[in-house]
Amino acid sequence: MRGALDWARDHGVERDGERVGPAPATEEPVLVFFGDAGHIAPLLVGTHHETVQEPRCLAVDDPLRETLRGDRPSSMRSAIMAVADGAADAVVSAGSTGALMALSRHLLGMLPGVRRPAVVKTLAGEQREFRMLDLGANIGTQPVHLHQFARMGQVAATTVDQLTEPTVALLNIGSEVNKGPAEVRAAARLVDADERLRYVGFVEPDRLFRAGADIVVADGFAGNIALKSAEGAARMARFMLERELADPSPRFALAKALVGRRLRRVQQAYNPQLYNGAVLLGLAGVVVKSHGGADRDGFRSAVAQAHRALDSGLIGKLAAGI
Amino acid sequence: MRGALDWARDHGVERDGERVGPAPATEEPVLVFFGDAGHIAPLLVGTHHETVQEPRCLAVDDPLRETLRGDRPSSMRSAIMAVADGAADAVVSAGSTGALMALSRHLLGMLPGVRRPAVVKTLAGEQREFRMLDLGANIGTQPVHLHQFARMGQVAATTVDQLTEPTVALLNIGSEVNKGPAEVRAAARLVDADERLRYVGFVEPDRLFRAGADIVVADGFAGNIALKSAEGAARMARFMLERELADPSPRFALAKALVGRRLRRVQQAYNPQLYNGAVLLGLAGVVVKSHGGADRDGFRSAVAQAHRALDSGLIGKLAAGI
Repeated sequence: MRGALDWARDHGVERDGERVGPAPATEEPVLVFFGDAGHIAPLLVGTHHETVQEPRCLAVDDPLRETLRGDRPSSMRSAIMAVADGAADAVVSAGSTGALMALSRHLLGMLPGVRRPAVVKTLAGEQREFRMLDLGANIGTQPVHLHQFARMGQVAATTVDQLTEPTVALLNIGSEVNKGPAEVRAAARLVDADERLRYVGFVEPDRLFRAGADIVVADGFAGNIALKSAEGAARMARFMLERELADPSPRFALAKALVGRRLRRVQQAYNPQLYNGAVLLGLAGVVVKSHGGADRDGFRSAVAQAHRALDSGLIGKLAAGI
Repeated sequence: MRGALDWARDHGVERDGERVGPAPATEEPVLVFFGDAGHIAPLLVGTHHETVQEPRCLAVDDPLRETLRGDRPSSMRSAIMAVADGAADAVVSAGSTGALMALSRHLLGMLPGVRRPAVVKTLAGEQREFRMLDLGANIGTQPVHLHQFARMGQVAATTVDQLTEPTVALLNIGSEVNKGPAEVRAAARLVDADERLRYVGFVEPDRLFRAGADIVVADGFAGNIALKSAEGAARMARFMLERELADPSPRFALAKALVGRRLRRVQQAYNPQLYNGAVLLGLAGVVVKSHGGADRDGFRSAVAQAHRALDSGLIGKLAAGI
């Protein structure tokens, strides 16, 4: 937290459930919770945290204009304001992606040269992880947007993941150059012509998890559909595994105990919570979107994404690289 | 086969690997293979089949115009021609979806009133099967097309699956009415206003397999991405399960044998081969697309799709219902 204490006095910060004076000097990151302190504090007893009292949640039907203007307070707005004021280094929210993006663009601004921000997420592949963007910030992107998403993804992969020469693929419904929508084919020509990018061609969604590209670029609609459809299929796989292994007979229980550790490892690998946390790329600040249904592990993963973006200096690298 | 024998004499049909005279009268459906008889016959020894000698496969780079005009022969063209001539009742092909659709439109024609054909497939959900269309025949569909896909899906569900009042959902990246592309929102208004359809709203891809709608409608690009992404995720689940269960130690082998049947059942349930076979809906004939990588079970499933369409009188019902 930079300047967190001055700011905290103005904003009614509580630390570890108590109103406090200056915090002890510490290198440990401090988590500040924005919301109803009365609800939050009992859940965090014994943990090191701060709370900013802002009991109102952003409502689904809040008019966007009033939300942006600040006519209606909300915990999401307060949290982003803390980053804008330099009092917090990053914001993690499990609220609406659309509102988080709109408020962040309004309060933090975009990095110079960025045409459109994009939502990027790290996903588990069969052999290794990869990054995919855009996952829903934009609908109806033009080829130049997709090209810039590839560049932003490349900067994130080299900076945060420390990859050298990461490969870039475009999501499409065929692998031949004449397949798919005209925008995707035009984007392929732009990405292929950019000597800074290591373009490897189209990737079809059924090969998404084994294609081996480090960065997969898509329009927000297509990217969101691919991601959520895969989540749905993985969830169905877990569901079927659990249903088949629910037999309570002793013989079966014994066998299950023997293979249990491995099955749990498979179930863990399907677990989207471990990959929770999407970065809103292109903004002048670190903003991470958590899944609304994130559990404790999921939220920890989202906070870790924010840390990795901060520690690696992602925003500065993006500003320099775009 | 209607008039199959006259036609067979003109086209050089072999039955069970031998040139034959009139076939014995039978109610059994006859499978006619179009391709290189020299390759096909040894694979089918002892089975009841016929072969039409057409050794040339449609090539990926065959110009579409020449393919349609018939300047270049191909086994796919011959097979569709057999349906057009009334010599065969249905065609099943594992060739290119685009070529199969283009040739079928050209040789069989569309049903009166159909604006665009669509690819429909039956998929396994957590609780029950559902049908999804379009899976790739069209890119850039207008709301009226999506509305008609809903109608065609409804006719298929009531006719082939014998459902009463099947439910219809539209694939979208949010469940609220203001979410997603303008075309999808406009299509929702058309489908909702159609009293013949039981519309249940948007379905997000992560709920595709548990939403419970009998028919899910999408643009071909979005539908294809959702389907293939789910296939990719299911494949990755199988891959991880197999990797974890590959331990050769005796203790583990024992446990695996005990839970083996159930695990195989889970693996079977992920098996896309069992759901192989997509119907090209809107054509004046039964055309089924098999996955290019289909195995024996997969091809059997595709042939069964063709049978079900024929037995239920799907084409007549579509002609009457659209």
